[in-house]
Amino acid sequence: MVDILHRIGAESATVDDAYAALTTIDGLAGWWTEDTTAVADDVIRFRFTLPQGEDGFDMKVLETEPGKLVHWEVVKGPEEWLGTHIRFELAQEGDWAIVMFRHEGWKEPVPFMHHCSTKWATFLVSLKELLETGKGSPNPNDLLISDWH
Amino acid sequence: MVDILHRIGAESATVDDAYAALTTIDGLAGWWTEDTTAVADDVIRFRFTLPQGEDGFDMKVLETEPGKLVHWEVVKGPEEWLGTHIRFELAQEGDWAIVMFRHEGWKEPVPFMHHCSTKWATFLVSLKELLETGKGSPNPNDLLISDWH
Repeated sequence: MVDILHRIGAESATVDDAYAALTTIDGLAGWWTEDTTAVADDVIRFRFTLPQGEDGFDMKVLETEPGKLVHWEVVKGPEEWLGTHIRFELAQEGDWAIVMFRHEGWKEPVPFMHHCSTKWATFLVSLKELLETGKGSPNPNDLLISDWH
Repeated sequence: MVDILHRIGAESATVDDAYAALTTIDGLAGWWTEDTTAVADDVIRFRFTLPQGEDGFDMKVLETEPGKLVHWEVVKGPEEWLGTHIRFELAQEGDWAIVMFRHEGWKEPVPFMHHCSTKWATFLVSLKELLETGKGSPNPNDLLISDWH
């Protein structure tokens, strides 16, 4: 099992702001993908416009602790993502809202995992920008990092 | 042991361009840190200007295969980095120069590793920009991702 790990901080922001950006449709649509919808009480659907067609994930919300933790399980998506878990751990460090990120449970460190690791970093920078400036870069206006988008 | 993994691609670029950016002082200074120097035949020194003072790494070049591979061992730097290995594997996929990146051998998934994972992603995007536009964002003009820089 191998994990993707990241850490970002948003200046002049609070963990409550970060928590809202991770638990509301408007918040999530502001940094990850504009095409974010609630499909059940505890399932959020994320769809992405890519050159190769539409793609995306459904996340079951397993745990939420205001200002502290958001924990999802991938219940629909590419085979490599199915059953993996995504955790956002929040901490206030002075003026900074810190997000510790883990996408855990990958079976193998395949090339697609390398791609997703880099892509997560750019989306977390988008989250930071949303918290600091009010405007992130969600799909379809996300940063192109390679031929895989 | 845990690894940091990334994948980026530079459009209209060749693996030879990427190899030059990973094996020459000018190339490395164009995307990672401007303060890059050769300190021995097979050791490259990277220093970074940070709010908390100067920091950096010395890398021993273990393997180089033109257009294919660059492999370093960290011989000086923060304790968490010492003895870890960094690999850049290059592949031409049509018009794209693909870089598969691995920073392997971390003992524990500490918060600093989370930070370095995100930071590597932003520097690899800087490498992509250097290859595509002739201009990257090396330290001290790198992207600030948190209170840790």
